[in-house]
Amino acid sequence: MSDTPVMEVAGMSRRREATRQKLLDAAALVFAEVGLDAASVEAICERAGFTRGAFYSNFETKDELFLELAGSVARGRVAVVRERVAALEGEGALELMPTNALEIVQQILDVSADDRLGVLLMSEIRIRALRTPALALAYLAQDEEMLRNVAQIISDIGAARALRFRVPADEAARLMLTVWEAASVRAVMAGLGDEEMRLRINEELARVAQVIIEPV
Amino acid sequence: MSDTPVMEVAGMSRRREATRQKLLDAAALVFAEVGLDAASVEAICERAGFTRGAFYSNFETKDELFLELAGSVARGRVAVVRERVAALEGEGALELMPTNALEIVQQILDVSADDRLGVLLMSEIRIRALRTPALALAYLAQDEEMLRNVAQIISDIGAARALRFRVPADEAARLMLTVWEAASVRAVMAGLGDEEMRLRINEELARVAQVIIEPV
Repeated sequence: MSDTPVMEVAGMSRRREATRQKLLDAAALVFAEVGLDAASVEAICERAGFTRGAFYSNFETKDELFLELAGSVARGRVAVVRERVAALEGEGALELMPTNALEIVQQILDVSADDRLGVLLMSEIRIRALRTPALALAYLAQDEEMLRNVAQIISDIGAARALRFRVPADEAARLMLTVWEAASVRAVMAGLGDEEMRLRINEELARVAQVIIEPV
Repeated sequence: MSDTPVMEVAGMSRRREATRQKLLDAAALVFAEVGLDAASVEAICERAGFTRGAFYSNFETKDELFLELAGSVARGRVAVVRERVAALEGEGALELMPTNALEIVQQILDVSADDRLGVLLMSEIRIRALRTPALALAYLAQDEEMLRNVAQIISDIGAARALRFRVPADEAARLMLTVWEAASVRAVMAGLGDEEMRLRINEELARVAQVIIEPV
């Protein structure tokens, strides 16, 4: 064991990572087609071109895979927002932004994609977590991680723009995440298209931001 | 038709109402035992002691029944809060209440029950509405009705206590309802007991109220 070359270990780790990613991609496709309940481990493996053995050496259960998928969708969105904030900061544009909450929210969040499938996935994994205690704890841990990331972004924007908030950054993050999710769900139910959905969500988030940001 | 005595029409209507209520009660029991997907029309009818004919003369689909059930749970909670506000107002206690948001929220919401089953029911009907366009519209209509009722309660409390809000009553109601639901879901996932769950939810609602209420 000790004489296994480092390169080979790294190679194995990359292969393993690639397998996980292919299983996640396949799961996203199967979920889009048949929903969470009908998305079986068999169907996911078939789509990914792997055996059940490959599946179970990467994920303990189907729920674990879908929680990771929902998490990677959520993390992807936060990453896009973080990059946007960094870019605005790099251009010196963050300091020049208007204090109007709607404009701040629009400039920062306009890049983030909101899609029907992501909303469905997050709602489905949530109901499964409500029914499954072990999954619930993993869900809450992932939720806390998201919260910390969003709180950091809010702190950064606040610092760059010298904004004062009426609540601590983690409470602000919780409110923004909660409103974002509820607004997304209502937008999907109302059958809005992607563009209209984003506008609606931005408006709702801006209203919350307006309450949270203390006027100068 | 025109000579049908009014009494008899009223009697039929009462019988019909009683049948609907028995079907709703039976559905709540079956849901508690097996969840929404497995709660079949057959199982609900068997539990209620009715035929499928009786079911379909009252509800077009199983989803319609469960939406009404979720709505009646939600309306029941709002009704309890409204009675509480009216009682406090009658005692002249509403005017004497502290301006501290947590105490206001505690005194007003401490009567409202939050239970795991209600949270599950609302989450389940929501995911079905996300998947089913016709149900989605009915869900949104019911949601709007709830929003109006809660906005009215908030306006009444604001008027009685001479509170000033930073957002219109309907926005305040939307925020309170959204936070209440999200906090309930997290409390159930965390496996909190009823009492601890109510405390946690009250705290989260109080934090939002604190932001919404303009200090004197």
